[in-house]
Amino acid sequence: MLRIGLLGCGRIGQVHAQSIKTLKGATVTAVADAMPEAANVIATEAGARIDTAQAILESDDVDAVVIGTPTDTHFDLIHGAAASGKAIFCEKPIDMSVDNIRACIEAVDGAGVPFMTGFNRRFDPNFAAVRDRIAAGDIGEVELVTITSRDPAPPPVSYIERSGGLFRDMMIHDFDMARFLIGEEFVSLHAVGSNLVDPAIGVAGDVDTAAVILTTASGRICQISNSRRAAYGYDQRIEVHGVLGMLRAENQLETTVELASSKGFARSPAQHFFLERYTAAYVAEMAAFIDAVETGNAPDPSIRDGLAAQVMADAATLSRETGKPVSL
Amino acid sequence: MLRIGLLGCGRIGQVHAQSIKTLKGATVTAVADAMPEAANVIATEAGARIDTAQAILESDDVDAVVIGTPTDTHFDLIHGAAASGKAIFCEKPIDMSVDNIRACIEAVDGAGVPFMTGFNRRFDPNFAAVRDRIAAGDIGEVELVTITSRDPAPPPVSYIERSGGLFRDMMIHDFDMARFLIGEEFVSLHAVGSNLVDPAIGVAGDVDTAAVILTTASGRICQISNSRRAAYGYDQRIEVHGVLGMLRAENQLETTVELASSKGFARSPAQHFFLERYTAAYVAEMAAFIDAVETGNAPDPSIRDGLAAQVMADAATLSRETGKPVSL
Amino acid sequence: MLRIGLLGCGRIGQVHAQSIKTLKGATVTAVADAMPEAANVIATEAGARIDTAQAILESDDVDAVVIGTPTDTHFDLIHGAAASGKAIFCEKPIDMSVDNIRACIEAVDGAGVPFMTGFNRRFDPNFAAVRDRIAAGDIGEVELVTITSRDPAPPPVSYIERSGGLFRDMMIHDFDMARFLIGEEFVSLHAVGSNLVDPAIGVAGDVDTAAVILTTASGRICQISNSRRAAYGYDQRIEVHGVLGMLRAENQLETTVELASSKGFARSPAQHFFLERYTAAYVAEMAAFIDAVETGNAPDPSIRDGLAAQVMADAATLSRETGKPVSL
Amino acid sequence: MLRIGLLGCGRIGQVHAQSIKTLKGATVTAVADAMPEAANVIATEAGARIDTAQAILESDDVDAVVIGTPTDTHFDLIHGAAASGKAIFCEKPIDMSVDNIRACIEAVDGAGVPFMTGFNRRFDPNFAAVRDRIAAGDIGEVELVTITSRDPAPPPVSYIERSGGLFRDMMIHDFDMARFLIGEEFVSLHAVGSNLVDPAIGVAGDVDTAAVILTTASGRICQISNSRRAAYGYDQRIEVHGVLGMLRAENQLETTVELASSKGFARSPAQHFFLERYTAAYVAEMAAFIDAVETGNAPDPSIRDGLAAQVMADAATLSRETGKPVSL
Repeated sequence: MLRIGLLGCGRIGQVHAQSIKTLKGATVTAVADAMPEAANVIATEAGARIDTAQAILESDDVDAVVIGTPTDTHFDLIHGAAASGKAIFCEKPIDMSVDNIRACIEAVDGAGVPFMTGFNRRFDPNFAAVRDRIAAGDIGEVELVTITSRDPAPPPVSYIERSGGLFRDMMIHDFDMARFLIGEEFVSLHAVGSNLVDPAIGVAGDVDTAAVILTTASGRICQISNSRRAAYGYDQRIEVHGVLGMLRAENQLETTVELASSKGFARSPAQHFFLERYTAAYVAEMAAFIDAVETGNAPDPSIRDGLAAQVMADAATLSRETGKPVSL
Repeated sequence: MLRIGLLGCGRIGQVHAQSIKTLKGATVTAVADAMPEAANVIATEAGARIDTAQAILESDDVDAVVIGTPTDTHFDLIHGAAASGKAIFCEKPIDMSVDNIRACIEAVDGAGVPFMTGFNRRFDPNFAAVRDRIAAGDIGEVELVTITSRDPAPPPVSYIERSGGLFRDMMIHDFDMARFLIGEEFVSLHAVGSNLVDPAIGVAGDVDTAAVILTTASGRICQISNSRRAAYGYDQRIEVHGVLGMLRAENQLETTVELASSKGFARSPAQHFFLERYTAAYVAEMAAFIDAVETGNAPDPSIRDGLAAQVMADAATLSRETGKPVSL
Repeated sequence: MLRIGLLGCGRIGQVHAQSIKTLKGATVTAVADAMPEAANVIATEAGARIDTAQAILESDDVDAVVIGTPTDTHFDLIHGAAASGKAIFCEKPIDMSVDNIRACIEAVDGAGVPFMTGFNRRFDPNFAAVRDRIAAGDIGEVELVTITSRDPAPPPVSYIERSGGLFRDMMIHDFDMARFLIGEEFVSLHAVGSNLVDPAIGVAGDVDTAAVILTTASGRICQISNSRRAAYGYDQRIEVHGVLGMLRAENQLETTVELASSKGFARSPAQHFFLERYTAAYVAEMAAFIDAVETGNAPDPSIRDGLAAQVMADAATLSRETGKPVSL
Repeated sequence: MLRIGLLGCGRIGQVHAQSIKTLKGATVTAVADAMPEAANVIATEAGARIDTAQAILESDDVDAVVIGTPTDTHFDLIHGAAASGKAIFCEKPIDMSVDNIRACIEAVDGAGVPFMTGFNRRFDPNFAAVRDRIAAGDIGEVELVTITSRDPAPPPVSYIERSGGLFRDMMIHDFDMARFLIGEEFVSLHAVGSNLVDPAIGVAGDVDTAAVILTTASGRICQISNSRRAAYGYDQRIEVHGVLGMLRAENQLETTVELASSKGFARSPAQHFFLERYTAAYVAEMAAFIDAVETGNAPDPSIRDGLAAQVMADAATLSRETGKPVSL
């Protein structure tokens, strides 16, 4: 039974607590949050104690920590957890600074603790099936990947202001997905971005609509498009072309019901947002973390995957600002 | 070059004239219609002469006749054509009386002329593919067939009054399709029907909504449903279950365009009615007739297929009236 | 907090225990099963005590019972639970004998206890959405319902022998769904059935492939088809036609992934069987039961819905044997 | 009746001759081709005379010319046709040199003859519907367009060598489609390309897999991807995102038939290549040309549309070679 300390009891902390509840083999023993109320909700539901993050890091009845606190606290928590030999699950982004992430890698490697980066989409059953079928040779060598990722509506500008911008807080998931699928590291990136959804986002210095082209050394190509707006629900699709054909994963709709009327054939909207769409992915992700820690296998996605995506997000931000491709 | 005399220049006559125009290997040399204007339209377009049906049947420059006149004229025209040795293509139903159809079979057999019944749906590329793939063993032995056939809107009651009723003018196509797909003759039939679409149809003694169950000696089952109403366009679908799986043919929509909006995902209506949906089928049907006559192969569907479907339509009419199953 | 006694710890008992675990507002306090091992699994997982059914019926810390034992034990358990004032959730069929069900209705009505029949499919989000949208007027008055229900593979013949046959153990769900959707009671039924899947089923006196036509007094029609075989997974579809159009619910596939290759476009099989397909339905069903008991609203589907479906199953069995329609 | 001289009787010439045959209001009176046999086939079928291109340009019984000859002959034929006052339909690309196209514009404008560029895809019923629905406001202001265009198999290298390369012979259609849909001129373009399909294409100095990002002054974005390979048939899809949602046009499959088996649900491949997919588009294109000439309306797409797409193809070629974005 893996004993987990949950650091951060906001929305994502609740998701992980709920996942752990449905899984055998792990239990939440302690929770911490700056907001006592938030901590209380999860503690009650999970039968866990409330404590400070520091106390949890030092406690004997915690084997692993799940870090879902604000990004600027990750660095210290990771160092603390590594120092006390806890296994670490950390939400993306690990840190806004790639230098800091490199420092974290050093700490984690030095301590020899397992570390998993929270790229939940790798565990979506559809996307995971695409990856598995690429590996099984269903489409032969990969040639071109197209990733579409659109949020149903823009976040508050206050969020945008401290998020690091669209490439670092939103497209970072797609950079990881691109790496997950393409089978080779990228060497070059060109990004464009516009402010079409909410003028306030532009005022805050960010874009809300963006597209990126990535290439690998052997010439494989990846296209990514992002928008902070999608009237029809959370738009999460991937398409992978290879020598023998294409694999694609479509959106999950709210129901399978179709209405045929004089206007034609109408199906349900896509599931609204990440909590609906990635429910199964969050459970599978936590199961993979627990399994990796218990078996001693290296968690995947690793801390280096977290670094790689952050490097790409920085490059995209730079490319968009300069109007020039960036080498990776 | 097969020289065709077109008997009947109404809507279906025009369809056949247009099909023959796009085909090599045949030409319309003469046309006849009770309405001079209708005859004139096709004659001009096809470069054919206008004549009486009788003169066409006796003429030396006509090898085959295409009969698209009112049903009550078929009997005499078939006998005339057989007597003068013309190949015959005749629209369904061959005749309202199965005894008359048997008499036609005798005349046609006696004269040894080729005869094809106009069950156009057998030539729909989708339905033909279903049949071909059943024959290829894709689903193993057939177990259950479901046929859905709904017109976009009811015909005028004046048409209903002389059509022989829903089972004889509409479901007759589905009876032929059932025989085309099930791979065995039916032995029993049970029909129900209601008047839900237009009260005037009920006043005229007919139903506008109906369902039938058919069974074969080995226990294969076919379900057919018909309605004179479908808000979303001409509904023409088949589904065939076998040991190894299911083959189904969906409707053809007006376009492949999909609109995703806050209401969900919306596609086009189905193609409106038979002229749109079965355009390719009508051309393929006429090509098959021309090919059969030129090669000397027996045309398919045959005059006996026309009889079999009419027998089933009579049985369904009786079953609906008596509320009892009818043996075939 | 509703305190539940779980009677029967087989497969369906485990499903309900798991549902209750994820719901707030209810807890399993006691479990009973003839097999101590089965009882032990759920008791451990739920933190409940193991007891005899009789003791549970008489216990003070149980407010409601969930009956998932073999059908022939339902009668006594329902009477016992009613006598001790427990709310009752009972799996279908309530009893093989409609007279017995009527006796249960008397007992339940006399005791004034809430009773819910386990027609889980009413709680499938897709089918429930179809019903809601009919009620919202999306397709106007209902005219024709088509229900397709196929198991992935036949059960063991030992199960068939005591199940009451296909119409009573399998199509009973579809009879309830037909009533749920058509908006009017049925007055007539005609059933056909064949033995095409497994000869041993025929030897046991049952059919494995069947179709039924049902009609209402106003002329609405329902078609149902069943088979014990579907190579592509559990086939559970409904289609409802009304004045203004059609509502249909398609199968849920294992993933949204599509492979495009030289053979065409291939999607995943349908979810394998009821445990996969109706996961959400089972949770919603138990939530509805708990909510009904707690609020004092009448549970729906009621014990009378259980009776009505059993009456239809008996009629279908008779119709199939006699080859004649049966009035309801 | 518009009298047409057909210059070039290869594959595309045959397509146009066939289209004209099915249209009322135009007829082919004369044909020319360097290969007598090719000319003979169309002449016989159309009942037209065979002549030299020069004679046709000067002939009194020709109102309009349809130019489907090799690209390097377009310049002289356009000048000749303009000088003799013929209406002109010319296949894309108008010329490999944008300077030459500008000279053609001068000649055409000077002569005041109608000129239409053969961008057939604008007339695809699906793509035309997307454009119409954008214009109707279905998705509000356009934000992002994604165009996927993949040929089923690469052309012979001999074709590649004189085609001007992928951007000029293949993606030029997508550049026109991008302009057709985005509602604003593009100002910047970045292209990448690789040689993944056939090494011989790389040896010939071309790419066979490519992606482009385009942006407009207001920040609208277009992504285009091309490949010379698609195992599942001709892949021709567009997706347009706007404020209120998305419009997308899917591939047209060979049939609507679906096979459900233990492997899942399998549909037909996409229609094989442009002759199958764009049959209706070619007819609609020719109808639009005939209509424009007869009514005196300006043909659309115009000669300037042909120029704009060629400018973009040149820019993409340059961008791919230099690795830098190019301003338009």
